[in-house]
Amino acid sequence: MADSLNCDLKSLSPLQLFEKVTEQGEKVRALKAGKAPKDEIDAAVRMLLSLKLSYKTATGQDYQAGLPPKDLELINNGTTKEEDEDLVDPWNVQTSNAKGVDYDKLIVRFGSSKIDTDLINRIERATGKKPHHFLRRGIFFSHRDMDQILDAYENKKSFYLYTGRGPSSQAMHVGHLIPFMFTKWLQEVFDVPLVIQLTDDEKYLWKDMTVEKAHEYAKENAKDIIACGFDINKTFIFSDLEYLGASPGFYKNIVKVQKHVTFNQVKGIFGFTDSDCIGKISFPAIQAAPSFSSSFPQIFNGKENIQCLIPCAIDQDPYFRMTRDVAPRIGQPKPALLHSVFFPALQGAQTKMSASDPNSSIFLTDTPKQIKTKINKHAFSGGRDTIEEHRKYGGNCDVDVSFMYLTFFLEDDDRLEQLKQAYTSGELLTGELKKVLIETMQPLVAAHQERRKQVTDEVVKQFMTPRKLAFEF
Amino acid sequence: MADSLNCDLKSLSPLQLFEKVTEQGEKVRALKAGKAPKDEIDAAVRMLLSLKLSYKTATGQDYQAGLPPKDLELINNGTTKEEDEDLVDPWNVQTSNAKGVDYDKLIVRFGSSKIDTDLINRIERATGKKPHHFLRRGIFFSHRDMDQILDAYENKKSFYLYTGRGPSSQAMHVGHLIPFMFTKWLQEVFDVPLVIQLTDDEKYLWKDMTVEKAHEYAKENAKDIIACGFDINKTFIFSDLEYLGASPGFYKNIVKVQKHVTFNQVKGIFGFTDSDCIGKISFPAIQAAPSFSSSFPQIFNGKENIQCLIPCAIDQDPYFRMTRDVAPRIGQPKPALLHSVFFPALQGAQTKMSASDPNSSIFLTDTPKQIKTKINKHAFSGGRDTIEEHRKYGGNCDVDVSFMYLTFFLEDDDRLEQLKQAYTSGELLTGELKKVLIETMQPLVAAHQERRKQVTDEVVKQFMTPRKLAFEF
Repeated sequence: MADSLNCDLKSLSPLQLFEKVTEQGEKVRALKAGKAPKDEIDAAVRMLLSLKLSYKTATGQDYQAGLPPKDLELINNGTTKEEDEDLVDPWNVQTSNAKGVDYDKLIVRFGSSKIDTDLINRIERATGKKPHHFLRRGIFFSHRDMDQILDAYENKKSFYLYTGRGPSSQAMHVGHLIPFMFTKWLQEVFDVPLVIQLTDDEKYLWKDMTVEKAHEYAKENAKDIIACGFDINKTFIFSDLEYLGASPGFYKNIVKVQKHVTFNQVKGIFGFTDSDCIGKISFPAIQAAPSFSSSFPQIFNGKENIQCLIPCAIDQDPYFRMTRDVAPRIGQPKPALLHSVFFPALQGAQTKMSASDPNSSIFLTDTPKQIKTKINKHAFSGGRDTIEEHRKYGGNCDVDVSFMYLTFFLEDDDRLEQLKQAYTSGELLTGELKKVLIETMQPLVAAHQERRKQVTDEVVKQFMTPRKLAFEF
Repeated sequence: MADSLNCDLKSLSPLQLFEKVTEQGEKVRALKAGKAPKDEIDAAVRMLLSLKLSYKTATGQDYQAGLPPKDLELINNGTTKEEDEDLVDPWNVQTSNAKGVDYDKLIVRFGSSKIDTDLINRIERATGKKPHHFLRRGIFFSHRDMDQILDAYENKKSFYLYTGRGPSSQAMHVGHLIPFMFTKWLQEVFDVPLVIQLTDDEKYLWKDMTVEKAHEYAKENAKDIIACGFDINKTFIFSDLEYLGASPGFYKNIVKVQKHVTFNQVKGIFGFTDSDCIGKISFPAIQAAPSFSSSFPQIFNGKENIQCLIPCAIDQDPYFRMTRDVAPRIGQPKPALLHSVFFPALQGAQTKMSASDPNSSIFLTDTPKQIKTKINKHAFSGGRDTIEEHRKYGGNCDVDVSFMYLTFFLEDDDRLEQLKQAYTSGELLTGELKKVLIETMQPLVAAHQERRKQVTDEVVKQFMTPRKLAFEF
């Protein structure tokens, strides 16, 4: 998930894991046969169990000697699939790996760049602030043209931030906060304005939902976003259904993008088919257009060609690959991007979370008791089946969802490292790790709820009113 | 073209015409061989020449005994085509018939209804006004649900009018005025409000043109439209590029339509392909949405579900067939329609006119001298090659463009009938008929230019400002 959690197993396919387990089993047998020192045998057994667990979480099946996962997959699905190929687009995130999507491979496939230590150090120098733990821990792991943003910034040329959300239901979960928490930090340390798009039109097009309902969700979600603490003088939040009818520039940019993208292209990028409605087919232009400052003449005082930086989850990248392809052809600068990993479901990192399953995550509306119950009941554990085994062989942080959540929400690096050591060595039990997570999430969610209560309809209206932001370019 | 000009030849294919000529040639030979009376022989020869002319204008080739047109077509194009099948969609109008598209067949193909004498009489009773000559002469020849509009109107339930124009160049020609002249009459006799859409976004998408240029053309064209004499208190003219960003209701209806139409459907209706840009693919929803009064909350004071009547040329019908299909599924009333024939090019009725060819029609910016030269030089004549032949056999009003133009612009029914008789009998020469047209068009265009001069930018701005129209529903 994060750079600090890297390990060799991370990029293995089920078949490769199968082979590793088989190999390790043979090693254990050989050590025992050769009467090796107890320490050595124990370490090898610990590794074997860890590998078996990784195999089980990756395939959903117990390791069975002589029955490789490809056969299992054929039995289960009747189909084969390109090995190691994660499916990532704005509507689907699928991986067979319990540790989640292979992000290094995604960088290669998407043609983006890794956020490396050099870049993180440059951000620190440019802002004079300690890099956010999302950067330090590889949660924001990939970028496009962030170096150019910094080049310009160092030469006193500023930029604006653009992020967004598809308001599919009233309740947001803690994972939804990731891009907003990071964007708030970027806004603060770079001191830049921000536009936030609520794609209620997208939700209307994709879901069984009325226009009115989608717009209502947008306004509800705006409250949770505002509760993250954005600067009202430098932040404009807009619903497509509302702002498209209130901006002299937005539609003009949309139609420009729509002229320069063919159906063949969106078919290739998004997998649309001839049976898709024309609204879906043309929607990518609507998510593209806020990348151009001329979409916001009221907001940026008519100033055009301001550079844009988009923090978002990596699944949104296809929209912006398309946008960057079109930008020069319509005389606009390409937006830069910062990509985050996906936030895992409580049940495990194989899929992105779903707001429609209340048990798949911790929701911003959950009570302390609900948070406790959910974590204890549903958070997938990388621990052992018995206390004895756990003490002996230790837990697996790579697949443990409680530990993953802590990498997102526990800001203290030393504490996190201690927990990792203690859990891996078997000193810390699953229940104890979960308790740390519960104690981290309960006050965090309670504080969010407290801030959200302060966000009145009047405040939402202010954030969503097109107006000049307090920033000169 | 018009009902009063109906004749048996109208619906004949080139092959059928070929057979008619052959048959008539044999008849003439038989009459001559049988020493028939001179009158009878002359009439038969006149008919033969008329048929040969019709054949030539229909096929572009001289009649050649023994070489039927299908063979000619194969020689010329290397392809065969469904006989009698005219091509009619919003971007193409093609027919092999010199008299123009076969409108009776189009009614059957499009599934619309003929505007018959009964309907014209009902309109006269409902409005208490003499029907417009476009109705009397079959220039508006087809409709959808006009009877329902009249049912409601007779029960004091009113409606609004919607028409439009794609502003592809600064200069409009007289043919562009047809829908506006008729719409103005409808607005007057029914006393109803009107919205006029200028699809500058469409022109940007389809042509090699900037957004700015397309919008400029829209405002220039608005002047010509306003010069037709619309009531400023009951008329709202809007450019898509401008109004889409200024209406709280327009985009909501667009996205509703876009959700209910698939790419497969627009492919079938409009012939789009995978190589078309997504802007073209989704555009039909933008032409559909003004059919719903909720697209104009400011204009109709928030009143929804007002019945809409659309006067337009028949080539726009595919948009509204689609709209009528979607309407009930998004809880909106189906718009009713009145369809006009196409205005012929000076060169002949085979194709719709093109604003890009200055000689293809009389432009609203033409001087009296230009009008005279164009008509004399380019107006396709149904007359004979020599004065002697013309006197003897008469002209063919069915293919004579000067006569066609007079059916559009000469309001006096008696005069038109006299001209027809005189031209057909050979009494009136081509030059004399052209002179009548010149004398009709010169003052008409001059008067238009005079009215257009009065239309200041300020007046355009008033017409194009979203505001409540002076009408209560």
